[in-house]
Amino acid sequence: MMKTHTDREYENQLRNLRDHLLTMGRSVEDMIGNAILALVRRDPALAKQTIETDRMINRLELETDELCLVILAKRQPMASDLRFITLSLKMVTDLERMGDIAVNICERVVDLSASEPLKPYVDIPRMASVVQGMVRDVIDAFVKADANQALAVITKDSEVDALYTRVFRDVLALMVADASTIERGIHVQSIAKWLERMGDHVTNLAEQVIFMVNGKDVRHASSLAKIPTV
Amino acid sequence: MMKTHTDREYENQLRNLRDHLLTMGRSVEDMIGNAILALVRRDPALAKQTIETDRMINRLELETDELCLVILAKRQPMASDLRFITLSLKMVTDLERMGDIAVNICERVVDLSASEPLKPYVDIPRMASVVQGMVRDVIDAFVKADANQALAVITKDSEVDALYTRVFRDVLALMVADASTIERGIHVQSIAKWLERMGDHVTNLAEQVIFMVNGKDVRHASSLAKIPTV
Repeated sequence: MMKTHTDREYENQLRNLRDHLLTMGRSVEDMIGNAILALVRRDPALAKQTIETDRMINRLELETDELCLVILAKRQPMASDLRFITLSLKMVTDLERMGDIAVNICERVVDLSASEPLKPYVDIPRMASVVQGMVRDVIDAFVKADANQALAVITKDSEVDALYTRVFRDVLALMVADASTIERGIHVQSIAKWLERMGDHVTNLAEQVIFMVNGKDVRHASSLAKIPTV
Repeated sequence: MMKTHTDREYENQLRNLRDHLLTMGRSVEDMIGNAILALVRRDPALAKQTIETDRMINRLELETDELCLVILAKRQPMASDLRFITLSLKMVTDLERMGDIAVNICERVVDLSASEPLKPYVDIPRMASVVQGMVRDVIDAFVKADANQALAVITKDSEVDALYTRVFRDVLALMVADASTIERGIHVQSIAKWLERMGDHVTNLAEQVIFMVNGKDVRHASSLAKIPTV
């Protein structure tokens, strides 16, 4: 059967929406990498440059929202397309906030670059690399509509949490032993905390992918006996 | 002109959606109040009881999402209704996360109740009360579709930020002076940080209300020359 012009236009709109989300995901992944590189290298210029890329993510958020609204208003998407579009509206918010978090990390990096290093960073780059992998995998799971891969992303988050706890304890021990480290220690703890929060956002994204694929809501599985279906 | 059965059903669905958001807003406001009451009174039982109420907010989130999907699938809402529904999808996420944040605060309160009080809490209850007022006002602005009231909510957030900075500095001074206060100090700083983050979520909500009313996106105003309209 020949596709109509309208079919093709609709498909293009959906592809465009998907591309926007992919670009946002990749940009967030890059921001995390550069923020932590700036920390390790004590490079405030790289941190400031990374902050600038957040503007692109913000622009993509607005454009993606607009795309969703246009599709919802002009087409009447049903079933799986409707789920894809409404979840895009939610995913874009998580991705945009991850960009904001990367900005927060960069601001701490700028502060930390001005004083003596607290200690060599080992666990924080490790956290960042786990989170980057999670972002990559969740976007891949989204494109392939692969619920199992999304589920694997969720299990990765406990690794991030464990690393966060270790960083928190290590830095606390330093602060207790030497009060002159407290201010820097709090900055380092904040960076670890922001990375941990990134992990939470990726977990939200993964839950959304699973919902998109299965039509099952894995959020708050215990709080509803009935699983909502549309 | 007589209203058809279908019109009335549709109106009921929209009213039901609005009620869900109102209930979530009120529940979040109550959770904040009770979490800080538990802190001040050193009442771990109240903190634990408050944690339980988050289950209701989680259930409301799932129900609200489902309602939005049903309306989008079965009706073809246009213009302002479409904006109301898609923004409900986003608002519900912010409200649900605010419930999670209140849970985080309650967990810190339980920890803090087990040790000696750090100092009398003055600025933290003040922060909580500003944030509660912001939640109340943003929900009110949402119901009345009042963009000016929503804008006033956004300006309130700087008050929350200023109080956070003061708490942070005060507690930092305590920790520098006496290392035995560090662990408790970090808990108290976390509570302040969580309240500050609540303020950010309410700001997001307020921006969404303004968008709903004006069709103008106030998010990232500087990052787009063109204001998207639908």
